[in-house]
Amino acid sequence: MNKPLILVSNDDGITATGIRTLVEIMKELGEVIVVAPDSPQSGMGHAITIGNTLRLTETDIFEGLISYKCSGTPADCVKLAKHYVMKDRKPDLVVSGINHGSNTSISVLYSGTMSAAIEGAIEGMPSIGFSLCDYSSHADFSHTKEYVKKIAMQVLKNGLPKGVALNVNIPPKRNENIKGIKICRQARAKWQEEFDQRFDPNGRRYFWLAGNFVNFDKGEDNDEWAIANNYVSVVPCQFDMTAHHTISILNDEWDIVE
Amino acid sequence: MNKPLILVSNDDGITATGIRTLVEIMKELGEVIVVAPDSPQSGMGHAITIGNTLRLTETDIFEGLISYKCSGTPADCVKLAKHYVMKDRKPDLVVSGINHGSNTSISVLYSGTMSAAIEGAIEGMPSIGFSLCDYSSHADFSHTKEYVKKIAMQVLKNGLPKGVALNVNIPPKRNENIKGIKICRQARAKWQEEFDQRFDPNGRRYFWLAGNFVNFDKGEDNDEWAIANNYVSVVPCQFDMTAHHTISILNDEWDIVE
Repeated sequence: MNKPLILVSNDDGITATGIRTLVEIMKELGEVIVVAPDSPQSGMGHAITIGNTLRLTETDIFEGLISYKCSGTPADCVKLAKHYVMKDRKPDLVVSGINHGSNTSISVLYSGTMSAAIEGAIEGMPSIGFSLCDYSSHADFSHTKEYVKKIAMQVLKNGLPKGVALNVNIPPKRNENIKGIKICRQARAKWQEEFDQRFDPNGRRYFWLAGNFVNFDKGEDNDEWAIANNYVSVVPCQFDMTAHHTISILNDEWDIVE
Repeated sequence: MNKPLILVSNDDGITATGIRTLVEIMKELGEVIVVAPDSPQSGMGHAITIGNTLRLTETDIFEGLISYKCSGTPADCVKLAKHYVMKDRKPDLVVSGINHGSNTSISVLYSGTMSAAIEGAIEGMPSIGFSLCDYSSHADFSHTKEYVKKIAMQVLKNGLPKGVALNVNIPPKRNENIKGIKICRQARAKWQEEFDQRFDPNGRRYFWLAGNFVNFDKGEDNDEWAIANNYVSVVPCQFDMTAHHTISILNDEWDIVE
Protein backbone atom coordinates (compact mmCIF):
# COMPACT_ATOMS: atom_id res chain seq x y z
CA MET A 1 0.00 0.00 0.00
CA ASN A 2 1.22 3.50 -0.78
CA LYS A 3 2.03 5.75 2.13
CA PRO A 4 -0.67 8.39 2.67
CA LEU A 5 0.07 11.81 1.21
CA ILE A 6 -0.11 14.55 3.84
CA LEU A 7 -0.20 18.30 3.22
CA VAL A 8 1.09 20.41 6.10
CA SER A 9 0.41 24.14 6.50
CA ASN A 10 0.02 26.65 9.31
CA ASP A 11 -0.51 30.32 10.08
CA ASP A 12 2.51 31.12 12.25
CA GLY A 13 4.77 30.88 9.20
CA ILE A 14 7.01 28.17 7.81
CA THR A 15 9.81 28.70 10.36
CA ALA A 16 7.58 28.33 13.46
CA THR A 17 8.25 25.68 16.10
CA GLY A 18 4.73 24.32 15.78
CA ILE A 19 5.00 23.38 12.11
CA ARG A 20 8.36 21.71 12.70
CA THR A 21 6.75 19.59 15.42
CA LEU A 22 3.81 18.78 13.14
CA VAL A 23 6.06 17.81 10.23
CA GLU A 24 8.09 15.47 12.46
CA ILE A 25 4.92 13.70 13.59
CA MET A 26 3.44 13.46 10.08
CA LYS A 27 6.67 11.97 8.69
CA GLU A 28 5.91 8.92 10.82
CA LEU A 29 2.51 8.57 9.14
CA GLY A 30 3.11 9.25 5.48
CA GLU A 31 4.69 11.26 2.68
CA VAL A 32 4.74 14.91 3.71
CA ILE A 33 4.56 18.03 1.52
CA VAL A 34 4.69 21.45 3.16
CA VAL A 35 3.14 24.65 1.78
CA ALA A 36 3.08 27.36 4.45
CA PRO A 37 3.12 31.16 4.71
CA ASP A 38 6.50 32.89 4.50
CA SER A 39 5.50 35.17 7.41
CA PRO A 40 3.10 35.04 10.37
CA GLN A 41 -0.58 35.15 9.39
CA SER A 42 -2.28 34.99 12.77
CA GLY A 43 -5.77 36.39 12.88
CA MET A 44 -6.13 36.24 9.10
CA GLY A 45 -9.42 34.36 9.34
CA HIS A 46 -10.48 32.92 6.03
CA ALA A 47 -8.75 35.66 4.04
CA ILE A 48 -7.60 34.98 0.49
CA THR A 49 -5.41 37.09 -1.77
CA ILE A 50 -7.49 38.65 -4.53
CA GLY A 51 -6.11 42.09 -5.35
CA ASN A 52 -2.44 41.12 -5.12
CA THR A 53 -0.11 38.58 -6.66
CA LEU A 54 1.11 35.46 -4.89
CA ARG A 55 4.67 34.18 -4.63
CA LEU A 56 5.52 30.54 -4.09
CA THR A 57 9.14 29.59 -3.46
CA GLU A 58 10.64 26.15 -2.93
CA THR A 59 12.68 25.89 0.30
CA ASP A 60 15.02 23.39 1.93
CA ILE A 61 13.88 24.12 5.48
CA PHE A 62 12.64 20.55 5.92
CA GLU A 63 15.36 18.09 5.02
CA GLY A 64 14.30 15.53 2.46
CA LEU A 65 10.81 16.99 1.99
CA ILE A 66 9.18 18.99 -0.77
CA SER A 67 8.34 22.31 0.84
CA TYR A 68 7.24 25.71 -0.37
CA LYS A 69 6.83 29.05 1.34
CA CYS A 70 4.02 31.26 0.09
CA SER A 71 3.47 35.01 0.32
CA GLY A 72 -0.25 34.52 0.91
CA THR A 73 -2.64 33.47 3.63
CA PRO A 74 -3.14 29.93 5.00
CA ALA A 75 -6.18 29.50 2.72
CA ASP A 76 -4.05 30.60 -0.25
CA CYS A 77 -1.42 27.98 0.72
CA VAL A 78 -3.95 25.14 0.61
CA LYS A 79 -5.36 26.38 -2.70
CA LEU A 80 -1.88 26.62 -4.25
CA ALA A 81 -0.91 23.23 -2.83
CA LYS A 82 -3.98 21.56 -4.27
CA HIS A 83 -4.03 23.23 -7.67
CA TYR A 84 -0.34 23.77 -8.35
CA VAL A 85 2.14 21.92 -6.09
CA MET A 86 0.18 18.64 -5.87
CA LYS A 87 -1.66 19.07 -9.12
CA ASP A 88 -1.90 15.40 -10.10
CA ARG A 89 -2.25 13.98 -6.59
CA LYS A 90 -4.85 14.53 -3.91
CA PRO A 91 -3.69 14.59 -0.28
CA ASP A 92 -5.17 11.94 2.01
CA LEU A 93 -4.92 14.37 4.88
CA VAL A 94 -4.45 18.12 5.38
CA VAL A 95 -3.05 19.25 8.73
CA SER A 96 -2.47 22.81 9.89
CA GLY A 97 -0.52 24.06 12.91
CA ILE A 98 0.51 23.36 15.51
CA ASN A 99 -0.66 26.88 16.31
CA HIS A 100 1.20 28.74 19.02
CA GLY A 101 -1.85 29.73 21.04
CA SER A 102 -5.45 28.67 21.55
CA ASN A 103 -8.07 28.46 18.81
CA THR A 104 -10.98 27.39 20.98
CA SER A 105 -14.47 28.82 20.89
CA ILE A 106 -15.06 31.95 18.80
CA SER A 107 -11.36 32.11 17.86
CA VAL A 108 -12.10 29.53 15.17
CA LEU A 109 -13.50 32.42 13.08
CA TYR A 110 -10.34 34.53 13.32
CA SER A 111 -7.93 31.63 13.08
CA GLY A 112 -5.59 31.29 10.12
CA THR A 113 -4.76 27.78 11.33
CA MET A 114 -8.38 26.72 11.00
CA SER A 115 -8.86 28.50 7.68
CA ALA A 116 -6.27 26.16 6.15
CA ALA A 117 -8.17 23.18 7.55
CA ILE A 118 -11.56 24.52 6.44
CA GLU A 119 -10.16 25.20 2.98
CA GLY A 120 -9.01 21.57 2.88
CA ALA A 121 -12.53 20.44 3.80
CA ILE A 122 -14.04 22.64 1.07
CA GLU A 123 -11.74 20.80 -1.36
CA GLY A 124 -13.06 17.48 -0.07
CA MET A 125 -9.93 16.46 1.84
CA PRO A 126 -9.97 15.22 5.47
CA SER A 127 -8.51 18.18 7.36
CA ILE A 128 -7.45 19.02 10.90
CA GLY A 129 -6.21 22.20 12.58
CA PHE A 130 -4.07 21.72 15.69
CA SER A 131 -3.43 24.39 18.32
CA LEU A 132 -1.51 24.44 21.58
CA CYS A 133 -3.26 26.55 24.23
CA ASP A 134 -0.06 28.15 25.42
CA TYR A 135 0.98 31.69 24.44
CA SER A 136 4.28 31.72 26.35
CA SER A 137 7.33 32.33 24.17
CA HIS A 138 8.91 29.10 25.41
CA ALA A 139 5.79 26.98 24.94
CA ASP A 140 6.65 23.28 25.14
CA PHE A 141 5.16 21.31 22.22
CA SER A 142 6.55 17.91 23.28
CA HIS A 143 3.39 16.60 24.97
CA THR A 144 1.28 17.34 21.88
CA LYS A 145 2.88 14.56 19.84
CA GLU A 146 0.93 11.65 21.31
CA TYR A 147 -2.43 13.33 20.70
CA VAL A 148 -1.67 14.81 17.30
CA LYS A 149 -0.58 11.39 16.11
CA LYS A 150 -3.58 9.55 17.57
CA ILE A 151 -6.08 11.97 16.03
CA ALA A 152 -4.35 12.08 12.63
CA MET A 153 -4.26 8.25 12.51
CA GLN A 154 -7.94 8.10 13.42
CA VAL A 155 -8.81 10.49 10.57
CA LEU A 156 -6.56 8.62 8.10
CA LYS A 157 -8.38 5.42 9.08
CA ASN A 158 -12.01 6.60 9.20
CA GLY A 159 -12.07 9.84 7.22
CA LEU A 160 -14.37 12.63 8.32
CA PRO A 161 -18.03 13.43 7.67
CA LYS A 162 -18.53 15.46 4.48
CA GLY A 163 -18.10 19.21 4.85
CA VAL A 164 -16.40 18.91 8.25
CA ALA A 165 -12.88 19.78 9.45
CA LEU A 166 -11.60 19.21 12.98
CA ASN A 167 -10.52 21.98 15.33
CA VAL A 168 -8.17 20.32 17.83
CA ASN A 169 -6.88 22.25 20.86
CA ILE A 170 -4.33 20.81 23.25
CA PRO A 171 -3.87 22.00 26.84
CA PRO A 172 -0.54 23.55 27.83
CA LYS A 173 2.01 21.23 29.43
CA ARG A 174 1.12 20.98 33.10
CA ASN A 175 2.37 18.84 35.98
CA GLU A 176 -0.72 16.66 35.69
CA ASN A 177 -1.00 14.44 32.59
CA ILE A 178 -3.65 15.18 29.96
CA LYS A 179 -6.79 13.22 30.86
CA GLY A 180 -7.84 12.25 27.33
CA ILE A 181 -9.69 13.45 24.23
CA LYS A 182 -13.22 14.94 24.19
CA ILE A 183 -15.42 15.58 21.15
CA CYS A 184 -16.88 19.02 21.89
CA ARG A 185 -18.97 21.84 20.60
CA GLN A 186 -17.59 25.38 20.19
CA ALA A 187 -18.03 27.24 23.51
CA ARG A 188 -20.16 30.40 23.68
CA ALA A 189 -17.53 33.01 24.40
CA LYS A 190 -16.07 36.14 22.87
CA TRP A 191 -13.22 38.58 23.02
CA GLN A 192 -14.06 41.72 24.98
CA GLU A 193 -11.97 44.30 23.17
CA GLU A 194 -10.19 47.12 24.89
CA PHE A 195 -8.30 49.14 22.32
CA ASP A 196 -4.98 50.44 23.55
CA GLN A 197 -4.79 54.04 22.30
CA ARG A 198 -1.30 55.52 21.74
CA PHE A 199 0.28 58.43 19.90
CA ASP A 200 3.12 58.14 17.41
CA PRO A 201 6.21 60.44 17.43
CA ASN A 202 4.24 62.84 15.19
CA GLY A 203 1.39 63.07 17.67
CA ARG A 204 -1.00 61.04 15.52
CA ARG A 205 -3.26 58.56 17.27
CA TYR A 206 -3.09 54.83 16.67
CA PHE A 207 -4.52 51.71 18.30
CA TRP A 208 -3.50 48.23 19.28
CA LEU A 209 -6.26 45.67 19.35
CA ALA A 210 -6.25 44.17 22.83
CA GLY A 211 -8.80 42.52 25.04
CA ASN A 212 -9.91 39.79 27.34
CA PHE A 213 -11.51 36.48 26.58
CA VAL A 214 -14.92 36.16 28.21
CA ASN A 215 -16.54 32.73 28.52
CA PHE A 216 -20.35 32.76 28.83
CA ASP A 217 -20.69 29.00 28.57
CA LYS A 218 -21.67 27.02 31.68
CA GLY A 219 -21.77 23.67 29.85
CA GLU A 220 -19.32 20.77 30.18
CA ASP A 221 -19.57 19.66 26.55
CA ASN A 222 -17.60 22.53 25.01
CA ASP A 223 -13.96 23.13 24.10
CA GLU A 224 -13.28 25.73 26.81
CA TRP A 225 -14.40 23.30 29.50
CA ALA A 226 -12.26 20.54 28.00
CA ILE A 227 -9.07 22.64 27.96
CA ALA A 228 -9.70 24.02 31.47
CA ASN A 229 -10.10 20.43 32.69
CA ASN A 230 -6.97 19.18 30.93
CA TYR A 231 -8.61 17.32 28.04
CA VAL A 232 -7.73 17.65 24.36
CA SER A 233 -10.78 19.21 22.64
CA VAL A 234 -11.92 18.12 19.19
CA VAL A 235 -14.64 20.29 17.62
CA PRO A 236 -16.07 19.17 14.25
CA CYS A 237 -16.47 22.42 12.26
CA GLN A 238 -18.57 22.96 9.17
CA PHE A 239 -18.34 25.58 6.46
CA ASP A 240 -22.09 25.68 5.98
CA MET A 241 -22.75 28.76 8.09
CA THR A 242 -26.54 28.62 7.61
CA ALA A 243 -28.45 28.85 10.87
CA HIS A 244 -30.86 26.19 9.58
CA HIS A 245 -33.01 26.25 12.73
CA THR A 246 -33.90 29.90 12.11
CA ILE A 247 -35.17 29.59 8.54
CA SER A 248 -38.67 28.63 9.64
CA ILE A 249 -38.64 31.39 12.30
CA LEU A 250 -37.83 34.03 9.68
CA ASN A 251 -40.37 32.61 7.23
CA ASP A 252 -43.06 32.79 9.93
CA GLU A 253 -42.18 36.23 11.32
CA TRP A 254 -41.38 38.18 8.22
CA ASP A 255 -44.27 39.72 6.36
CA ILE A 256 -42.13 40.61 3.35
CA VAL A 257 -41.32 37.11 2.12
CA GLU A 258 -43.05 36.16 -1.08
CA MET B 1 -39.06 57.75 20.38
CA ASN B 2 -35.38 58.15 19.56
CA LYS B 3 -34.31 57.39 16.04
CA PRO B 4 -32.52 54.02 15.79
CA LEU B 5 -28.72 54.20 15.75
CA ILE B 6 -27.25 52.49 12.70
CA LEU B 7 -23.61 51.55 12.14
CA VAL B 8 -22.59 51.27 8.48
CA SER B 9 -19.43 49.50 7.28
CA ASN B 10 -18.29 47.60 4.20
CA ASP B 11 -15.30 45.85 2.63
CA ASP B 12 -14.95 47.74 -0.65
CA GLY B 13 -13.66 50.79 1.22
CA ILE B 14 -15.27 54.00 2.40
CA THR B 15 -15.33 55.63 -1.05
CA ALA B 16 -17.17 52.78 -2.80
CA THR B 17 -20.51 53.32 -4.56
CA GLY B 18 -22.14 50.57 -2.53
CA ILE B 19 -21.56 52.19 0.86
CA ARG B 20 -22.81 55.55 -0.45
CA THR B 21 -26.02 53.83 -1.55
CA LEU B 22 -26.35 52.07 1.80
CA VAL B 23 -25.78 55.29 3.77
CA GLU B 24 -28.46 57.10 1.75
CA ILE B 25 -30.99 54.35 2.50
CA MET B 26 -30.09 54.13 6.21
CA LYS B 27 -30.42 57.91 6.65
CA GLU B 28 -34.15 57.41 5.98
CA LEU B 29 -34.33 54.91 8.86
CA GLY B 30 -32.22 56.39 11.64
CA GLU B 31 -29.08 58.13 12.86
CA VAL B 32 -26.13 56.85 10.85
CA ILE B 33 -22.49 56.49 11.89
CA VAL B 34 -19.97 55.15 9.37
CA VAL B 35 -16.76 53.28 10.20
CA ALA B 36 -15.32 51.67 7.09
CA PRO B 37 -11.95 50.57 5.70
CA ASP B 38 -9.78 53.22 4.06
CA SER B 39 -8.94 50.81 1.22
CA PRO B 40 -10.55 47.76 -0.43
CA GLN B 41 -10.64 44.68 1.81
CA SER B 42 -12.33 42.16 -0.47
CA GLY B 43 -11.63 38.54 0.37
CA MET B 44 -10.38 39.40 3.84
CA GLY B 45 -12.68 36.85 5.45
CA HIS B 46 -12.90 37.29 9.19
CA ALA B 47 -9.37 38.71 9.44
CA ILE B 48 -8.47 41.00 12.31
CA THR B 49 -5.35 43.10 12.82
CA ILE B 50 -3.19 41.62 15.55
CA GLY B 51 0.48 42.18 14.70
CA ASN B 52 0.04 45.73 13.39
CA THR B 53 -1.33 49.00 14.63
CA LEU B 54 -4.66 50.45 13.53
CA ARG B 55 -5.38 53.99 12.35
CA LEU B 56 -8.80 55.58 12.64
CA THR B 57 -9.35 58.97 11.00
CA GLU B 58 -12.46 61.13 11.00
CA THR B 59 -13.62 62.08 7.49
CA ASP B 60 -16.17 64.41 5.93
CA ILE B 61 -17.03 62.10 3.04
CA PHE B 62 -20.64 61.82 4.21
CA GLU B 63 -22.14 65.27 4.69
CA GLY B 64 -23.66 65.78 8.11
CA LEU B 65 -22.68 62.34 9.42
CA ILE B 66 -20.04 61.14 11.84
CA SER B 67 -17.76 58.94 9.75
CA TYR B 68 -14.36 57.37 10.19
CA LYS B 69 -12.01 55.55 7.85
CA CYS B 70 -9.95 52.76 9.34
CA SER B 71 -6.71 51.14 8.22
CA GLY B 72 -7.93 47.70 9.28
CA THR B 73 -10.29 45.00 8.12
CA PRO B 74 -14.11 45.11 8.19
CA ALA B 75 -14.10 43.15 11.48
CA ASP B 76 -11.65 45.69 12.94
CA CYS B 77 -14.01 48.51 11.86
CA VAL B 78 -16.93 47.02 13.77
CA LYS B 79 -14.76 46.39 16.84
CA LEU B 80 -13.41 49.96 16.80
CA ALA B 81 -16.90 51.38 16.20
CA LYS B 82 -18.35 49.45 19.14
CA HIS B 83 -15.54 49.98 21.61
CA TYR B 84 -14.22 53.40 20.65
CA VAL B 85 -16.39 55.50 18.30
CA MET B 86 -19.76 54.55 19.83
CA LYS B 87 -18.42 53.72 23.25
CA ASP B 88 -21.44 54.82 25.30
CA ARG B 89 -24.11 53.84 22.79
CA LYS B 90 -25.03 50.51 21.26
CA PRO B 91 -26.18 50.45 17.64
CA ASP B 92 -29.69 49.15 17.02
CA LEU B 93 -28.53 47.84 13.67
CA VAL B 94 -25.24 47.08 11.91
CA VAL B 95 -25.27 47.02 8.11
CA SER B 96 -22.38 46.21 5.80
CA GLY B 97 -22.10 46.74 2.05
CA ILE B 98 -23.56 47.07 -0.41
CA ASN B 99 -20.83 44.80 -1.71
CA HIS B 100 -19.89 45.16 -5.34
CA GLY B 101 -20.21 41.48 -6.25
CA SER B 102 -21.92 38.33 -5.02
CA ASN B 103 -21.46 36.84 -1.55
CA THR B 104 -23.71 33.83 -2.02
CA SER B 105 -22.88 30.28 -1.05
CA ILE B 106 -19.31 29.49 0.08
CA SER B 107 -18.26 33.11 -0.58
CA VAL B 108 -19.70 33.97 2.83
CA LEU B 109 -16.49 32.53 4.33
CA TYR B 110 -14.18 34.76 2.27
CA SER B 111 -16.37 37.83 2.44
CA GLY B 112 -15.20 40.93 4.25
CA THR B 113 -18.73 42.31 3.93
CA MET B 114 -20.13 39.40 5.91
CA SER B 115 -17.31 39.47 8.46
CA ALA B 116 -18.46 42.95 9.52
CA ALA B 117 -22.01 41.61 9.92
CA ILE B 118 -20.86 38.47 11.77
CA GLU B 119 -18.72 40.62 14.07
CA GLY B 120 -21.81 42.71 14.81
CA ALA B 121 -23.73 39.53 15.69
CA ILE B 122 -20.91 38.37 17.99
CA GLU B 123 -21.32 41.71 19.78
CA GLY B 124 -25.04 41.04 20.16
CA MET B 125 -26.22 43.61 17.60
CA PRO B 126 -28.75 42.83 14.82
CA SER B 127 -26.56 42.76 11.71
CA ILE B 128 -26.97 42.43 7.96
CA GLY B 129 -24.51 42.15 5.07
CA PHE B 130 -25.82 43.30 1.68
CA SER B 131 -24.29 42.35 -1.67
CA LEU B 132 -25.20 43.10 -5.25
CA CYS B 133 -24.54 40.11 -7.54
CA ASP B 134 -23.04 42.23 -10.27
CA TYR B 135 -19.29 42.50 -10.86
CA SER B 136 -19.48 44.93 -13.79
CA SER B 137 -17.64 48.19 -13.25
CA HIS B 138 -20.81 50.15 -13.98
CA ALA B 139 -23.04 48.04 -11.73
CA ASP B 140 -26.36 49.79 -11.12
CA PHE B 141 -27.28 49.85 -7.40
CA SER B 142 -30.59 51.74 -7.85
CA HIS B 143 -32.89 48.72 -7.72
CA THR B 144 -31.37 47.52 -4.43
CA LYS B 145 -32.88 50.36 -2.43
CA GLU B 146 -36.39 48.95 -2.09
CA TYR B 147 -35.15 45.59 -0.79
CA VAL B 148 -32.36 46.91 1.45
CA LYS B 149 -34.87 49.22 3.12
CA LYS B 150 -37.56 46.54 3.52
CA ILE B 151 -35.15 44.07 5.10
CA ALA B 152 -33.49 46.63 7.38
CA MET B 153 -36.92 47.80 8.60
CA GLN B 154 -37.95 44.22 9.25
CA VAL B 155 -34.82 43.64 11.35
CA LEU B 156 -35.24 46.93 13.23
CA LYS B 157 -38.82 45.87 14.02
CA ASN B 158 -38.34 42.19 14.93
CA GLY B 159 -34.63 41.85 15.72
CA LEU B 160 -32.85 38.65 14.79
CA PRO B 161 -32.42 35.28 16.52
CA LYS B 162 -29.42 35.25 18.88
CA GLY B 163 -26.08 34.47 17.24
CA VAL B 164 -27.40 35.08 13.73
CA ALA B 165 -26.54 37.69 11.06
CA LEU B 166 -28.22 37.95 7.67
CA ASN B 167 -26.43 37.46 4.37
CA VAL B 168 -28.53 39.31 1.79
CA ASN B 169 -27.74 39.03 -1.92
CA ILE B 170 -29.57 41.03 -4.54
CA PRO B 171 -29.78 40.04 -8.22
CA PRO B 172 -28.24 42.35 -10.83
CA LYS B 173 -30.56 44.83 -12.48
CA ARG B 174 -32.33 42.98 -15.29
CA ASN B 175 -35.17 43.82 -17.63
CA GLU B 176 -37.53 41.69 -15.55
CA ASN B 177 -38.42 43.00 -12.07
CA ILE B 178 -37.15 41.17 -8.98
CA LYS B 179 -39.74 38.56 -7.97
CA GLY B 180 -39.44 38.96 -4.20
CA ILE B 181 -37.46 37.87 -1.14
CA LYS B 182 -36.63 34.26 -0.23
CA ILE B 183 -35.21 32.99 3.09
CA CYS B 184 -32.56 30.49 1.95
CA ARG B 185 -29.79 28.18 3.03
CA GLN B 186 -26.22 28.59 1.79
CA ALA B 187 -25.84 26.67 -1.51
CA ARG B 188 -23.35 23.81 -1.79
CA ALA B 189 -20.85 25.26 -4.21
CA LYS B 190 -17.19 26.18 -4.37
CA TRP B 191 -14.60 28.07 -6.33
CA GLN B 192 -12.60 25.86 -8.66
CA GLU B 193 -9.25 27.60 -8.65
CA GLU B 194 -7.08 27.95 -11.69
CA PHE B 195 -3.98 29.87 -10.77
CA ASP B 196 -2.75 32.17 -13.50
CA GLN B 197 1.02 31.74 -13.58
CA ARG B 198 3.12 34.65 -14.86
CA PHE B 199 6.70 35.86 -14.75
CA ASP B 200 7.82 39.29 -13.57
CA PRO B 201 10.37 41.45 -15.47
CA ASN B 202 13.13 39.68 -13.49
CA GLY B 203 11.95 36.27 -14.64
CA ARG B 204 10.56 35.30 -11.24
CA ARG B 205 7.30 33.39 -11.15
CA TYR B 206 4.15 34.75 -9.54
CA PHE B 207 0.47 33.81 -9.49
CA TRP B 208 -2.92 35.41 -9.67
CA LEU B 209 -5.70 33.58 -7.91
CA ALA B 210 -8.39 32.96 -10.50
CA GLY B 211 -11.10 30.41 -10.95
CA ASN B 212 -14.64 29.47 -11.72
CA PHE B 213 -17.61 29.16 -9.46
CA VAL B 214 -19.04 25.62 -9.48
CA ASN B 215 -22.53 25.00 -8.09
CA PHE B 216 -23.19 21.39 -6.93
CA ASP B 217 -26.58 22.22 -5.44
CA LYS B 218 -29.71 20.95 -7.18
CA GLY B 219 -32.09 22.33 -4.54
CA GLU B 220 -34.48 25.27 -4.87
CA ASP B 221 -34.15 26.44 -1.27
CA ASN B 222 -30.65 27.92 -1.55
CA ASP B 223 -29.21 31.34 -2.32
CA GLU B 224 -27.78 30.42 -5.72
CA TRP B 225 -31.18 29.26 -6.92
CA ALA B 226 -32.81 32.43 -5.59
CA ILE B 227 -30.39 34.77 -7.41
CA ALA B 228 -30.56 32.75 -10.64
CA ASN B 229 -34.36 33.00 -10.47
CA ASN B 230 -34.36 36.73 -9.77
CA TYR B 231 -35.21 36.64 -6.06
CA VAL B 232 -33.38 38.47 -3.28
CA SER B 233 -31.76 35.77 -1.10
CA VAL B 234 -31.62 36.08 2.70
CA VAL B 235 -29.45 33.48 4.45
CA PRO B 236 -29.39 33.50 8.26
CA CYS B 237 -25.74 32.84 9.18
CA GLN B 238 -24.39 31.70 12.53
CA PHE B 239 -20.92 32.01 14.02
CA ASP B 240 -21.22 28.70 15.84
CA MET B 241 -19.32 26.60 13.31
CA THR B 242 -19.84 23.33 15.23
CA ALA B 243 -21.16 20.52 13.02
CA HIS B 244 -23.45 19.45 15.88
CA HIS B 245 -24.92 16.52 13.93
CA THR B 246 -21.49 14.89 13.69
CA ILE B 247 -20.60 14.91 17.42
CA SER B 248 -22.40 11.64 18.06
CA ILE B 249 -20.90 10.09 14.91
CA LEU B 250 -17.37 10.89 16.08
CA ASN B 251 -18.12 9.70 19.62
CA ASP B 252 -19.36 6.39 18.23
CA GLU B 253 -16.64 5.82 15.64
CA TRP B 254 -13.55 6.96 17.46
CA ASP B 255 -11.88 4.45 19.71
CA ILE B 256 -9.60 7.07 21.24
CA VAL B 257 -12.19 9.14 23.08
CA GLU B 258 -12.13 8.78 26.85
